[in-house]
Amino acid sequence: MGRRMRTRDEVFGIPYGTRDFLPAEAKEKRAIESLLAEGFARWGYDEIVTPAFEFVDTLTLGNGRRIEPYMFKFFDRQNRTLALRHEMTTPIARVVASRMKGAEMPLKLFYLSPVYRYEQAQTGRQCEFYQAGVEFMGSDSEAADAEIVALAVASMKNAGLKNFQVCLGQVDFIHGLMQELRLDESAQEAVKAALEAHDLVGLRVLADQAGLAPKEKEALLAVPLLHGGTEIIEKARAMTTNGQSLRALDNLQAIYRLLQAYGAEEYVKFDLGIIRDFGYYTGMVFEAYTPGLGFPLCGGGRYDRLLSDFGRGCPATGFALGIERIMLALERENLKPPVSQKDTYISYAAPKREEAIRLAGERRAAGEIVELAPSEETRDEAVRRQTAKGYRELIYIE
Amino acid sequence: MGRRMRTRDEVFGIPYGTRDFLPAEAKEKRAIESLLAEGFARWGYDEIVTPAFEFVDTLTLGNGRRIEPYMFKFFDRQNRTLALRHEMTTPIARVVASRMKGAEMPLKLFYLSPVYRYEQAQTGRQCEFYQAGVEFMGSDSEAADAEIVALAVASMKNAGLKNFQVCLGQVDFIHGLMQELRLDESAQEAVKAALEAHDLVGLRVLADQAGLAPKEKEALLAVPLLHGGTEIIEKARAMTTNGQSLRALDNLQAIYRLLQAYGAEEYVKFDLGIIRDFGYYTGMVFEAYTPGLGFPLCGGGRYDRLLSDFGRGCPATGFALGIERIMLALERENLKPPVSQKDTYISYAAPKREEAIRLAGERRAAGEIVELAPSEETRDEAVRRQTAKGYRELIYIE
Repeated sequence: MGRRMRTRDEVFGIPYGTRDFLPAEAKEKRAIESLLAEGFARWGYDEIVTPAFEFVDTLTLGNGRRIEPYMFKFFDRQNRTLALRHEMTTPIARVVASRMKGAEMPLKLFYLSPVYRYEQAQTGRQCEFYQAGVEFMGSDSEAADAEIVALAVASMKNAGLKNFQVCLGQVDFIHGLMQELRLDESAQEAVKAALEAHDLVGLRVLADQAGLAPKEKEALLAVPLLHGGTEIIEKARAMTTNGQSLRALDNLQAIYRLLQAYGAEEYVKFDLGIIRDFGYYTGMVFEAYTPGLGFPLCGGGRYDRLLSDFGRGCPATGFALGIERIMLALERENLKPPVSQKDTYISYAAPKREEAIRLAGERRAAGEIVELAPSEETRDEAVRRQTAKGYRELIYIE
Repeated sequence: MGRRMRTRDEVFGIPYGTRDFLPAEAKEKRAIESLLAEGFARWGYDEIVTPAFEFVDTLTLGNGRRIEPYMFKFFDRQNRTLALRHEMTTPIARVVASRMKGAEMPLKLFYLSPVYRYEQAQTGRQCEFYQAGVEFMGSDSEAADAEIVALAVASMKNAGLKNFQVCLGQVDFIHGLMQELRLDESAQEAVKAALEAHDLVGLRVLADQAGLAPKEKEALLAVPLLHGGTEIIEKARAMTTNGQSLRALDNLQAIYRLLQAYGAEEYVKFDLGIIRDFGYYTGMVFEAYTPGLGFPLCGGGRYDRLLSDFGRGCPATGFALGIERIMLALERENLKPPVSQKDTYISYAAPKREEAIRLAGERRAAGEIVELAPSEETRDEAVRRQTAKGYRELIYIE
């Protein structure tokens, strides 16, 4: 057959950017996901599950073709191009615009799913990673945006995090300002890229090239510095006179007032330089950070155009949380999610096998976590296994 | 750009053999998976999570190249062939033979994962489907096989099933019999294929071609009929004289005695004609059926060779349950898994928004499932939404 020898790496290795979750990690992952799912349900959100792969034509509808290089693509038997989903919002928009067309609005949906992006792997960024998220579809009210931010805060607390900060921005503030400064489209893209990269030098170059008046230049260069408490809103208000930017600031203030009613304001700051990585945000945007991790744990915002790309005009807001990032943050803060302890290791000498089986059944029926010895063993072996496997109690029947 | 128009199907359609789980289905799926995961943990099994795709060279190591046509394959940036996993036992064997080499034996592991097979889709068989399963690695005792069968029974009960039957077989019984009948390798393969397809006519043709003595022919043709209670073991014992088959029957009897200690015997029958679809089973095998569904809900058995293919000789036994199949069986029997009810819809007139937010927070903190209105609405609108969304109680604040 000329069958090629397999290298050790091809047998024991796993593909670039993927990982295994060994028992301790898998247990933590399950505990966090269960806490998040229960929390989402408690807020009236319903789960939705979609296939791991879809037609590329569906996935690129909301995000545009620019995401294609980051996709894991393959072909079906009819030679149509499929890809592993790179996020969950587009698949959910597809379902809402088709099979759930008749459902009562607003729709509040959540998901807990792996997603796939071909990117350079690094701490907190894998090619396969797990997301938890929610979508609130069918309301353009600031109350919906406030609910989403409050639910993000509640979710991070549910997962066990204590030390995190949510930063609110509003894409219309930047859009209005760029219009006011008469930047053409390519200059606008360059400004957004500089803001996204926190590239203050590049922003200064762009401001110089755009031929702005001194006060205008000052306003543009101030955007990435608009980071802090409610005083930031007033500072921003003084920088701009266009209606779009001012309405964006009113919107942020209204959301903040509602976040006070949620009791979430201690976690919330403003950052008017936030540019989220997808093209589809249309209003409030936010990201959550924890000290010492250089990437957001959570991000989201309002995206009122995506559903009309699927033929169903409908405002929407939502967020996604990174499960592995939450695990990293918890580890960094020495916090552990509550995972159940192993209770009892039941072992036996040869003639007592049936008795051990019956006792294990009784203990499990009472809710205990019970492992039964693989077969008869000595008491010494039993003690060693109980210890190695971390059971609180040993019952040895002889 | 010459961008091709997208058809409706390419936007709203999903790939062949995949499905969405809408909220009612996703809730049922999560409830079943949680019950199964809790059950596995109660028996001392630890979860493991592996990537959705691996190197084809890894995945084919245990199952052979014959599974390749059923794989969803694609390439990484180094042009190595990847595939979506078609089952979970091989990835777990990889982990146990590499990263978990030092772990205390026996290892009891469980998983809850989607797997992928390119097959003709039909009821109970999708190209993407969800499996729950366990692997018990490091024991060749019949006690390990009995634990696996008992855990399969407990799992189906945990998921809410009442009416199911586990059929036990033993591949060594058939292997020993075929040796005794001096069938050559190609005849053995043909016999196995006929047994797997329940093709009695084909089996008769094979028996004729093999030039067997009348009593030998009778024995071979009786195999697919060896289905029933403990009397089947005695019947089979009378048909054969070879040591391998007789030891297989002893093994089944020992397992059955232990299943009585587990209190699981009412669900267990024998079926000595069971040939599982993978090449790797080496001892006891089993399948579970429910009336009216023509495919097993669950299947498994002993596979002592797989781990040595990964360079770590180690006996093992396990099973996999099909989540969608359990959902179909529950639906057929008009059984619903316990899913939480929606408690309270809180709505408000314009000035009461903050008050409504605070009340929703209090109710959720008390564990209630509470949805907050998207924004202010009239009492009539609130009543309509409460009803449409299925909340038990309405609180309208004005």
